[in-house]
Amino acid sequence: MKTSIATVCLSGSLEEKLRASAAAGFDGVEIFEPDFVASPLSPELVAELARDLGLTLDLYQPFRDFEGVAQGRLRQNLRRAEAKFELMNRLDIDTMLLCSNVGTAVSADDALAVDQLRQLGDLAALHGVRVAYEALAWGRFVSDYEHAARIVRAVDHPAVGHCLDSFHILSRGWDPAAIETIPADKIFFVQMADAPRLTMDLLSWSRHHRVFPGEGAFDLADFMGHLLRSGYDGPVSLEIFNDTFRRTDPHRTALDAMRSLEWLQELASQSLDREGREGVRMAVAPLPDMPPPLGFNFVEVRADENQRERVRTTLYQLGFDDAGTHHSKPVELWSQGGARVIINSGDATAGAPAVAALGFDVADPELAASRAATLLAPAVPRERGAGDEVLLGVRAPDSSEVFFGRVGSGGVPAWVAEFSAGTSASADALVTRVDHVNLAQSWEYFDAAVLFCTSVLALDPQPSLDVAAPTGLVRSQVMSTPDCVVRLVLNLAPAESVETAVRAQHVAFASNDAVATARRARERGLGFLPIGDNYYDDLDARFDLEPAFLDELRELQLMYDRDDRGEFLHFYTESLGSVFFEIVERRGGYAGYGAANAPVRLAAQHDRRLLAGAS
Amino acid sequence: MKTSIATVCLSGSLEEKLRASAAAGFDGVEIFEPDFVASPLSPELVAELARDLGLTLDLYQPFRDFEGVAQGRLRQNLRRAEAKFELMNRLDIDTMLLCSNVGTAVSADDALAVDQLRQLGDLAALHGVRVAYEALAWGRFVSDYEHAARIVRAVDHPAVGHCLDSFHILSRGWDPAAIETIPADKIFFVQMADAPRLTMDLLSWSRHHRVFPGEGAFDLADFMGHLLRSGYDGPVSLEIFNDTFRRTDPHRTALDAMRSLEWLQELASQSLDREGREGVRMAVAPLPDMPPPLGFNFVEVRADENQRERVRTTLYQLGFDDAGTHHSKPVELWSQGGARVIINSGDATAGAPAVAALGFDVADPELAASRAATLLAPAVPRERGAGDEVLLGVRAPDSSEVFFGRVGSGGVPAWVAEFSAGTSASADALVTRVDHVNLAQSWEYFDAAVLFCTSVLALDPQPSLDVAAPTGLVRSQVMSTPDCVVRLVLNLAPAESVETAVRAQHVAFASNDAVATARRARERGLGFLPIGDNYYDDLDARFDLEPAFLDELRELQLMYDRDDRGEFLHFYTESLGSVFFEIVERRGGYAGYGAANAPVRLAAQHDRRLLAGAS
Repeated sequence: MKTSIATVCLSGSLEEKLRASAAAGFDGVEIFEPDFVASPLSPELVAELARDLGLTLDLYQPFRDFEGVAQGRLRQNLRRAEAKFELMNRLDIDTMLLCSNVGTAVSADDALAVDQLRQLGDLAALHGVRVAYEALAWGRFVSDYEHAARIVRAVDHPAVGHCLDSFHILSRGWDPAAIETIPADKIFFVQMADAPRLTMDLLSWSRHHRVFPGEGAFDLADFMGHLLRSGYDGPVSLEIFNDTFRRTDPHRTALDAMRSLEWLQELASQSLDREGREGVRMAVAPLPDMPPPLGFNFVEVRADENQRERVRTTLYQLGFDDAGTHHSKPVELWSQGGARVIINSGDATAGAPAVAALGFDVADPELAASRAATLLAPAVPRERGAGDEVLLGVRAPDSSEVFFGRVGSGGVPAWVAEFSAGTSASADALVTRVDHVNLAQSWEYFDAAVLFCTSVLALDPQPSLDVAAPTGLVRSQVMSTPDCVVRLVLNLAPAESVETAVRAQHVAFASNDAVATARRARERGLGFLPIGDNYYDDLDARFDLEPAFLDELRELQLMYDRDDRGEFLHFYTESLGSVFFEIVERRGGYAGYGAANAPVRLAAQHDRRLLAGAS
Repeated sequence: MKTSIATVCLSGSLEEKLRASAAAGFDGVEIFEPDFVASPLSPELVAELARDLGLTLDLYQPFRDFEGVAQGRLRQNLRRAEAKFELMNRLDIDTMLLCSNVGTAVSADDALAVDQLRQLGDLAALHGVRVAYEALAWGRFVSDYEHAARIVRAVDHPAVGHCLDSFHILSRGWDPAAIETIPADKIFFVQMADAPRLTMDLLSWSRHHRVFPGEGAFDLADFMGHLLRSGYDGPVSLEIFNDTFRRTDPHRTALDAMRSLEWLQELASQSLDREGREGVRMAVAPLPDMPPPLGFNFVEVRADENQRERVRTTLYQLGFDDAGTHHSKPVELWSQGGARVIINSGDATAGAPAVAALGFDVADPELAASRAATLLAPAVPRERGAGDEVLLGVRAPDSSEVFFGRVGSGGVPAWVAEFSAGTSASADALVTRVDHVNLAQSWEYFDAAVLFCTSVLALDPQPSLDVAAPTGLVRSQVMSTPDCVVRLVLNLAPAESVETAVRAQHVAFASNDAVATARRARERGLGFLPIGDNYYDDLDARFDLEPAFLDELRELQLMYDRDDRGEFLHFYTESLGSVFFEIVERRGGYAGYGAANAPVRLAAQHDRRLLAGAS
């Protein structure tokens, strides 16, 4: 599969965009006209730069409002097209994207468009170039790719074919199956874009909210399947209009873009494999297949020596046992049931406690790491002594580390034996495992984090929601395995938020008895996040709880939620630096996270901050 | 008019919200339930705090999904309502907002809703409170206030009336005229919200994009007129769900909120005055009426002594004459035609040049300043010597200063005589006046800046557009007088943008001959912002210009645009600190700003930055 990317996906000058695309490994780029027009580089210098960078220039785009116009305007349009064809010759680009007319078309009669496109084809052929016609989702008379296909068939000109853009097809809900009916040699170009499901006008949705494949809600694997079955073997390009990507480091964005194409290709290959269609397999190295992780292997909290004691104390209060120190590294293990927390105080500059790494149980760590490398995730080297278990790690977009570990016998990883006390088997373990981990993400790399979870970790996005904090809305995106054994919650805090709470990470441990866990923690002196009476009065109004149960919740500062499938009890510790802990108990089939309680928690953390006089 | 504001408009804890509302001068507040539930303050303490702050608590909101439900659920709903009524007694709030059912209603038959609302009314009356029923724009069976009015009429209960929310009425395009048919004593509460015209689902539009009156596109003066003619004299409250307001300083937001109500009240009063309906005039001090400004009086650029010379040189190159220094202040005047630039080097800490103040010609400066004060704009004291002209100034949301000056004889303000050389009357003045000024605005206060222009300066918003810079989209909002003599362009740069160009201010001077102005500037050594050949080739493709004219544009680095009404020629100077200058020539009726050229300009500035190695 030949990979390409439109310059409009990236920030910077044209030259910066070309360099970032080449550095990320793209085969080619589409030149977005405004990027070229604003560039100080002549067409010849742009072509030379691309050649030097090993990039092909695959498409000049877009040309607008050509067909279906009045005769006088056609003359102007042909003149304009000729100027662009001459420019394309200087740029060494052989294909021009032509969008279906949104403004100047005067007739719904295809015959006029067909005639004028044939004239354009003749002119293009004279210049040795070709025109890829695309049905814009909001085109005036042509908005459906099957309609465009009828027109292109009628034009019947070797220099006039198609550009297919997944956004324009899937945003309108058109069935992409008919792509297979288009002759492969008439598909001149393909653009892939994903998008979240939004209810807004198509133009705004398209111009501001496209994302890379794997970051949105479109079924692009299905789309790719139709494309490959059509026999198409040209460039698969990304054309992503996204307000955030326009602002962030083009090198990082280009790497995310390439990752999304790798992932997309895997999905399409799998779908074709299932059909036994080896013949149309894409001509690239396959991505190692990986089933979703089987559980959390560990959570690593980094804290310097001054802060370490607070973490230890809190874990003890939550019922964790000290499983001793590592035989060669300045890390210690605390465990309870299947939950393992490593406290790493090896970095004197670590400062306040923070989640530094997550370990995941996988069947084959080498395979998972190899897959991550193919997906361009940078490897994290980890020191190890002779005989130590190998943990293979990569860096996530938020700079935290992700390790793949093997599930040991009895569910205990072999590396636990590297710690002096080994795993605990306390009879009074109430915590059974890590339920979920919340990770705050910066606005720059939120979509990249979603793609990392989708592609590298094989987690699926769940519907996202907004949570109101006293200092802004926090977008909360759950990524989970189908069986919900691994759940990550990605929180997009408001940009420039100064409030620690909305940028905090937290680790939620599953308990089979939140009440008992809370009682024990209280006896051991845990600092609970205080929850006010108003909350409990409201709980009573909403849920009509048994008075004794409500009293118990109130006494223990437990929070409560209920849905059609079950109940949820949970409580929070005070913040330790930028991390805090939560204990959750799921009764019945409750599958949520107490979203209704999150604003109360955030307000309580806000109040604590005010009390502490911190900023 | 009694003013009120919903706590959901403001950031912070409930206590912070109450304090900010009181400080801004509101009479009362609506308590948004989640703010109360999350508060550590008991109902009694909240009531006491409000009393101490001189605030009434006007509404408890919202209560949801009550009416039209199955019998079993009605029992639960009544129990829930009773708990809230008891709470309202403790809070000393007598009105509850009830939204039309969006989730649990089972019947479209009004009779069921009427019966259940009557039961709710009985319960409310028992507790001495009342229920204000509101048709949510996306209510399941009731989404139109006239439908709600039929239901309330049928309920016929003294404790059941209306809440009218301008968003829910105007977003659906309902005609607000029928408000006048609702008995005034049945309108229990009124919420005013403005919003930009967006095409998206109602819920997202309502929850994220509401703005204060005067910041959006709704005709709220008309809405208020209907309300006042109905005889309503209760609270007029603001309920603005806005992602930005949730994040910014609640004290500033509350002041903007109050300004919006002052402005709204003026518009409504004017509309009633025109009808001669003195009787329903609102019981507040009227806002001094002010016609739009008549022109730019001056532009003040602040620069320390080291940077002053660059500004002088650039102005000289653009054809300005040195009109001398002020007799008592460290400021100097440069003028050309009707354009006056003051260079202020009185602040040694000023640093790089920046637009510090704008002066506007008005018929009555005292009136304009008095109006601004009523609209809560902070006054700017300005030193003056004996006999100096009085300039009355206020501070805009972006911290720049705005002065109101009298038009002098021959269009020259009297204060010009305070400068040693006085005004110039060069025969070769090509610049005639200030055409427009572009002011970068931070994301926090963009909406506030729009309201400031609308209310304090009597400018009207024009349609906004997005301009693509290499480092992000810039939203550009023109505010102008109806005759376009005064035009301000508010630019909302991407948050956290590090690129100076997108945060820069610029002053555009109108010339009656841009070509001659450019030639003279070139002779005088002006550093033009360089524009590349690709731009001129594209101009040619788009506009089919006369070759000699195109050559002249290219030679002089002039930019060009054309619309149905005329032509536009313009060029830019290099940036001086955070300000640069533009010369524009409007031929015929061209009314735009060369928006198509803005990305080229921004890219050129981006390239200059890269060349300079600046950040």
